[in-house]
Amino acid sequence: MTQPKIAFIGLGAMGGAIAANLIRAGFEVTLYNRTREKLSPLLAIGGHAAGSVEQACAEAEILVTMLADDSAEEAICLGAAGAVAHLREDALHISHSTIGVAAARRLAEAHEKAGQHFLSAPVFGRPDVAAAAKLSILTGGRPELVERAKPLFDAIGQRVFPMGDKPEAANIAKLGGNMLIATVIESLGEVLALAGKAGIDRAAYLDMLTSTIFTAPVYKIYGDLIVARKYEPAGLTAPLGLKDIKLALAAADELRVPLPIGSLLRDRLTALLAQGADQEDWSAMARLAARDAGLE
Amino acid sequence: MTQPKIAFIGLGAMGGAIAANLIRAGFEVTLYNRTREKLSPLLAIGGHAAGSVEQACAEAEILVTMLADDSAEEAICLGAAGAVAHLREDALHISHSTIGVAAARRLAEAHEKAGQHFLSAPVFGRPDVAAAAKLSILTGGRPELVERAKPLFDAIGQRVFPMGDKPEAANIAKLGGNMLIATVIESLGEVLALAGKAGIDRAAYLDMLTSTIFTAPVYKIYGDLIVARKYEPAGLTAPLGLKDIKLALAAADELRVPLPIGSLLRDRLTALLAQGADQEDWSAMARLAARDAGLE
Repeated sequence: MTQPKIAFIGLGAMGGAIAANLIRAGFEVTLYNRTREKLSPLLAIGGHAAGSVEQACAEAEILVTMLADDSAEEAICLGAAGAVAHLREDALHISHSTIGVAAARRLAEAHEKAGQHFLSAPVFGRPDVAAAAKLSILTGGRPELVERAKPLFDAIGQRVFPMGDKPEAANIAKLGGNMLIATVIESLGEVLALAGKAGIDRAAYLDMLTSTIFTAPVYKIYGDLIVARKYEPAGLTAPLGLKDIKLALAAADELRVPLPIGSLLRDRLTALLAQGADQEDWSAMARLAARDAGLE
Repeated sequence: MTQPKIAFIGLGAMGGAIAANLIRAGFEVTLYNRTREKLSPLLAIGGHAAGSVEQACAEAEILVTMLADDSAEEAICLGAAGAVAHLREDALHISHSTIGVAAARRLAEAHEKAGQHFLSAPVFGRPDVAAAAKLSILTGGRPELVERAKPLFDAIGQRVFPMGDKPEAANIAKLGGNMLIATVIESLGEVLALAGKAGIDRAAYLDMLTSTIFTAPVYKIYGDLIVARKYEPAGLTAPLGLKDIKLALAAADELRVPLPIGSLLRDRLTALLAQGADQEDWSAMARLAARDAGLE
């Protein structure tokens, strides 16, 4: 079986690491990115450069995207200069981007109209996990599309979690997961503010929590940032974090699912941005609980 | 060094398991419980029965309590028939009960006036963890009191986490931890309602979450209960859960620390009790998110 030819668009920290693993696994990958300087390390290991979306897609059997948000994804895919217009019939678009339900549906429809296929495949894992090819991949799409994507998934991740046949199922699953992460940040921020004001050593308290009940690395990673008040450089910026919470709430609105904690997180992140935290990590949310308590 | 004589009061699921481990470790333990039938298995392994608090405390150098709430703890300790009145001078009271800041202070003061000592030592771990002598023990009290309690802690737990010299530091630390557990329940309830209404298999979704980011057992344990809608028999009943959240909020009120998630949890658990869930586990809170979404 010959390897499918791949077009890869979106070479940020995550996309760059994923593309590198595909190239190393022997795929023929043609790369496109809005800012060209991200290409060099990938060309050095065997990737091919494209000067436009059209050029990237021309020969591709599979398009992989990893873009920041709905509008970046739609800008790349839709319209006369977009991927849908330039991919061949039967091509498969695997989208690793964390996008919303409405965007996923629009993309799926556009591809279907063009005789192409769309597989939502958002991932869990930070850039170091992507570099180690240990991403967790959620899928929304029919089993045969997941099967077709499998050689690529094998090269970039450690496990695939099918969430259903509809593309948006994977997006809702991912957005729900991100809401849970934001919940960890906010709740840690609150109890660390309480502990701090009670005169308890915050680092010792966090150590107790993460050594007993809250052993998942997410508590340690974000707890350390909160204890150190170290919110830069950002892993996920506050604006992107808010974007994800709003997408979760939009999905919940459409399905009529009240999310009291989700709504609280939206307000917290909105307040954080109102205070000028655009460049900070979304864990800076914890500063609000500390400030409210008169601690900072 | 001879082992100190111990009085042990409060033989529920947790207290019974802790007392058994003290007896097995060779301590001379005199037991008192409001309902006497809890004593039999402990007498069978070498415990001594007392008919009253006074009788239990008469010879004790160390009193250990594990009681349900502030009022049970104060009823046992204060007043003419209470432990403070009947313990000898220099006796140490180790309280494993999850009590509030105000109660911890009142107990510490009463013991101090009587020339005795008080060490707050709430624990993390369910009855099976207590039975395995693997509790995590938080302490609030001066280092010499923690040192004096150490032979007992060695027999019942796996690690001691000193939270400060003031007794209430340990209680605040424990209450904050319980608030984080309740946050896990509520946030899982919300995202599982969202996933369920989106047509995602809830068990598959939970498996994805607990296999990727949320690997701490607390997510799996409560997630399984929520997916199975199995809220009885209760591990921690909803009324006791609400008690803990209210104690966290009371501590936060006194210290002037707003806790938005804490307040939300109070409302959720109050609504749960309004619907008659007194015998259910506090994870039944997740039913509210499902009901709000029209799922049950």
